[in-house]
Amino acid sequence: MEKVRIIEVKESIFADNDREAARLRAGLKREKTFLLNLMSSPGGGKTTLLKRTIEALKDELRIGVLEADIDSAVDAEKIAATGVKTIQLHTGGMCHLDAGMTEKGLKELGTADLDLVVLENVGNLVCPAEFDTGAVKNAMILSVPEGDDKPLKYPLIFTVSDVLIINKIDVLPHFDFDLDKVKEYAHLRNPKLEIFPLSAKTGEGMTAWLDWLRRQVRDWTQTD
Amino acid sequence: MEKVRIIEVKESIFADNDREAARLRAGLKREKTFLLNLMSSPGGGKTTLLKRTIEALKDELRIGVLEADIDSAVDAEKIAATGVKTIQLHTGGMCHLDAGMTEKGLKELGTADLDLVVLENVGNLVCPAEFDTGAVKNAMILSVPEGDDKPLKYPLIFTVSDVLIINKIDVLPHFDFDLDKVKEYAHLRNPKLEIFPLSAKTGEGMTAWLDWLRRQVRDWTQTD
Repeated sequence: MEKVRIIEVKESIFADNDREAARLRAGLKREKTFLLNLMSSPGGGKTTLLKRTIEALKDELRIGVLEADIDSAVDAEKIAATGVKTIQLHTGGMCHLDAGMTEKGLKELGTADLDLVVLENVGNLVCPAEFDTGAVKNAMILSVPEGDDKPLKYPLIFTVSDVLIINKIDVLPHFDFDLDKVKEYAHLRNPKLEIFPLSAKTGEGMTAWLDWLRRQVRDWTQTD
Repeated sequence: MEKVRIIEVKESIFADNDREAARLRAGLKREKTFLLNLMSSPGGGKTTLLKRTIEALKDELRIGVLEADIDSAVDAEKIAATGVKTIQLHTGGMCHLDAGMTEKGLKELGTADLDLVVLENVGNLVCPAEFDTGAVKNAMILSVPEGDDKPLKYPLIFTVSDVLIINKIDVLPHFDFDLDKVKEYAHLRNPKLEIFPLSAKTGEGMTAWLDWLRRQVRDWTQTD
């Protein structure tokens, strides 16, 4: 396995994050690279979903991954094992990534020959939602064991996400989790939110999510 | 059910948090009130554990609860239903509580007639670990569905906690979670960490946790 490169990104040099994020997105459009920001709680299943997604799409798309973590390279090593280009970003204790930190990671990764880059954000439902990373779309995972009341308790992340993946549906029988209720709560926060219930572990429900992602990458990278 | 009072605590007036936390703890010692800071990821099971704990101890201890949340009063209403004094703290988007915010909550709650106050911190494994709230002890929950690699990925919270509760052991058969491995990883971060595997839902393993908590409250509140 290729050794994972680790980049320290704790200091961002840009004061105006929103402007920097917009500039970053415009550059990605010119390069025909789609950047997806993937957020969830710790243990929500970001890395497993990402591995499954890469395995399904790597023959049709050129994929790269930015793995953000407070510390360790546990996830980056798992992703690098799939064979895609992977960079580990260390936030030095910070619980989010902003556009400047993301740009630094993208430069290290090199995006010219990539169709899709996934930024696996720090496991957290609060801080990552507060910063535009420059991603084209934001996806979040809520996993069944976390409970169906999370859209009430962490409203912002549901508001800023384009996609809600409800992961670990294979364990639905073992938890008090009302799928209809969580969809209703989530749509109260964000009526346009697209919702995909799935199990990254068993593969159930992955098709709808993969179709959505394929369509997004195609729309973003096609020549006007 | 008593209506839950909601307090906004987003601004702390104290610059030196560590000194303020020490001052708060000294005041709690004089008042013979034990303050427990309870931390976990979103959906780790803080509220369910707290409900169970209150039900087990409310005839022997006078208990109060500070419920911290970004938004909503979902948890505070569940706790107030147990009959104990409960205050909802709204952090206004912030993902932690510091000593000044905690003190404001304690003043609203009134601690003179309480033996035990539990502060249910914001669901997050990063920011809450960075601030001393003034609590006598820190307890954290890691739930089985979150995975056994979390001590590697979120080191600080394991380092600053006195107790690690491994919750949701009733679903161990449905997840790849190595209990021995997580104990080993957690003790690498903090050799003194006391670890209680339990299920707040089924009640399995609760006795050891309750015994520990009883002993802590007794040691703190007894007259020297």
